[in-house]
Amino acid sequence: MSPEHARAKAPAEPFRIGLLGLGTVGAAFAELLEERAGEIERFNGRRPQICGVLTRTRGDFEEILAEADLLVELIGGIEPAREYLLTAMRSGMDVVSANKQLLSQHGEELFETAREHGVRLRFEAAVAGVVPVVRVLEESLSATPIERVHGIVNGTTNFILTEMDHGSSYAEALAAAQRRGFAEADPSDDVSGRDAAAKMAILARLAFGTPVHLNDVRYEGIEHLHVTDLEYARELGLGLKLIGTAERRGGGLSVRVHPAFLYSGHPLASVSGTFNAVTVESEAITEITMSGPGAGGRQTASAVLGDVVSVMTGGAQAPAAPLALPLIEDVASAFYLHFDVADRPGVLAAITGVLGDQGVSIKSVVQRGMGENARLVMVTHPVLESSLRTAIDRVAEFEFVRSAPRAIRVIEEEFI
Amino acid sequence: MSPEHARAKAPAEPFRIGLLGLGTVGAAFAELLEERAGEIERFNGRRPQICGVLTRTRGDFEEILAEADLLVELIGGIEPAREYLLTAMRSGMDVVSANKQLLSQHGEELFETAREHGVRLRFEAAVAGVVPVVRVLEESLSATPIERVHGIVNGTTNFILTEMDHGSSYAEALAAAQRRGFAEADPSDDVSGRDAAAKMAILARLAFGTPVHLNDVRYEGIEHLHVTDLEYARELGLGLKLIGTAERRGGGLSVRVHPAFLYSGHPLASVSGTFNAVTVESEAITEITMSGPGAGGRQTASAVLGDVVSVMTGGAQAPAAPLALPLIEDVASAFYLHFDVADRPGVLAAITGVLGDQGVSIKSVVQRGMGENARLVMVTHPVLESSLRTAIDRVAEFEFVRSAPRAIRVIEEEFI
Repeated sequence: MSPEHARAKAPAEPFRIGLLGLGTVGAAFAELLEERAGEIERFNGRRPQICGVLTRTRGDFEEILAEADLLVELIGGIEPAREYLLTAMRSGMDVVSANKQLLSQHGEELFETAREHGVRLRFEAAVAGVVPVVRVLEESLSATPIERVHGIVNGTTNFILTEMDHGSSYAEALAAAQRRGFAEADPSDDVSGRDAAAKMAILARLAFGTPVHLNDVRYEGIEHLHVTDLEYARELGLGLKLIGTAERRGGGLSVRVHPAFLYSGHPLASVSGTFNAVTVESEAITEITMSGPGAGGRQTASAVLGDVVSVMTGGAQAPAAPLALPLIEDVASAFYLHFDVADRPGVLAAITGVLGDQGVSIKSVVQRGMGENARLVMVTHPVLESSLRTAIDRVAEFEFVRSAPRAIRVIEEEFI
Repeated sequence: MSPEHARAKAPAEPFRIGLLGLGTVGAAFAELLEERAGEIERFNGRRPQICGVLTRTRGDFEEILAEADLLVELIGGIEPAREYLLTAMRSGMDVVSANKQLLSQHGEELFETAREHGVRLRFEAAVAGVVPVVRVLEESLSATPIERVHGIVNGTTNFILTEMDHGSSYAEALAAAQRRGFAEADPSDDVSGRDAAAKMAILARLAFGTPVHLNDVRYEGIEHLHVTDLEYARELGLGLKLIGTAERRGGGLSVRVHPAFLYSGHPLASVSGTFNAVTVESEAITEITMSGPGAGGRQTASAVLGDVVSVMTGGAQAPAAPLALPLIEDVASAFYLHFDVADRPGVLAAITGVLGDQGVSIKSVVQRGMGENARLVMVTHPVLESSLRTAIDRVAEFEFVRSAPRAIRVIEEEFI
């Protein structure tokens, strides 16, 4: 059909959107939708428009449900968002949500409901800002078995680590993040790794088609990192990032979040500031990396609007029923170890003896005298975390150890 | 529905694929499809299978057309691929193609036919290997007006530049690429920038919804680059890449391919070897970067299979009718200039005088004596290419200029 014919047709019904929540993202979404409605209509034949808004003080959920073609949930938190989404899907309505808490804790209930009622549940904005990793995992990669997903999925912590890399202390970097609106007054969800863990639960579910709950994800934050760790990283040519990992390990699945050193050529090593990035590895594709801004109301709104358009164009079906892969808690990693010790004979032998007893094999050691004291820095070969922890705890008991030993994982170059 | 219920259902009809071409990519596609058919069936309810293959020596196109649900074209070249695709779409069949030549030269005819007959035309593998940029441009980004696309979309030239950055000459690097199967015996399509130009024509069409033909794309290759250009780049902390650009410029569109210096923080500066990467910029999203392997039969096959799955799941409609944006030929860029001159008084004044006459404003100058001779390296502020070329041609006429002046564009940090 030529453009002239298209214009001559009777105008199609608008595509009616019920909007739950009008906070930062909700308001940005309403504004962006208004700006883009004409262009979306040109591409898709129907003009999207908001038919009702629900906030704490105004709007009626039942009325919105009766009128809308699609529900967009931007309230956040568990309830009443969960109840609204379930009710909408049970009534046969497609839904879009940016709610990572809800998806990481009640994902199976939501996916199951979408499947049962044959409706779409879209949530691109819940994971990595505008980085279209949900869409890519769902669609492009259904053709290939995924081996591993690595992600920098929390912009606040990546900003803090970038500032520390430029010499700030943790406290200074956190204060800078708060001043610039990148961190909450109570930053614990971000800096503890819990926010990243929620996002990795969602990504792992998508990448491996297996149920993963936030509680299944082991996480460690960045609060305990020192500027000296970043100095060492620079010296060794490594980047230090808060990395989420979801990977197949011996017939099971390991999902975890922790600080990690990355060799400088790793695609995530150069991701700085509040940016997010995700690397997907598989035998057939080697690796794909996607990066972009991790936060910001307008960016998140753009991801939400992308989901709306995807529903309008009929893409993305209800999710498939899950497989159950066992979740593996104890995985092998290479570690960087850092010990402050008294500078006297026999110390290195004592420490390496304890490490050896636990099967921790040393790849490299650097010892530096500092007057009375010495600093020992080691990088290990991959070792089970439980063995490493046992060894470290034993080393900490030596009277010549001057401060708590430090252990940070190292992600080395490897191609599957 | 629980997995038990799903298994109890009567088996659905297979999803029948007619395959045109059984070269490297075609054979890899057939193999990958076989491996993944079970998993795709689990997700989508139907098992994909090849119902007929057409090669130069076997198969019958009419029979395949009568049997298939979808046609996958992996023949390459213009004819008979064009005729097969048009015939299939006219008969109401969805099609998948990896054919960049065809799409960049007959794209509008193909898109128009898809639109007229309401069928899907998918071509993720035609542009950037497994990097899912087509899908992302079509779907995620329909919600946001794109300002600029930068891409490293030719793995052969990126490999050659990476080798040159490690000290090889152009000839050595090209020979290494040929030895490793990354470059053809006749590499001219790659090294001239023409292959990248075809891909940028396709990306520009998607990003801006306006018809762009290969002939609309200005391109410059890497054959004239010297190792010294890469040495200078390293010294200045810049990367030197073959960059495709499609961007809005003053109400029009500029699409071009040329070598360019990138500041070291640019997301494309660290893309090395045969990898491809694309950066998409827009006001609402800031920028998204996607990278991954640019070539390889199995990687390309994985992108093709992703398109097959996308058709099976009902995503991605027929393309919208195009808008016509004027194509702009002469755009302003910053340039790095390199002059070998006699080391005598008045030379710098003479050169800067000519540059100034053409409105070329200098940002920085470095002069280095080399006995009798001197090397002048300048970086300009953005200037129209036509003015820059005129100025350079005039400078080349001075008797004190010892070799042809060199001019390479510089992409500076800018956030829209």
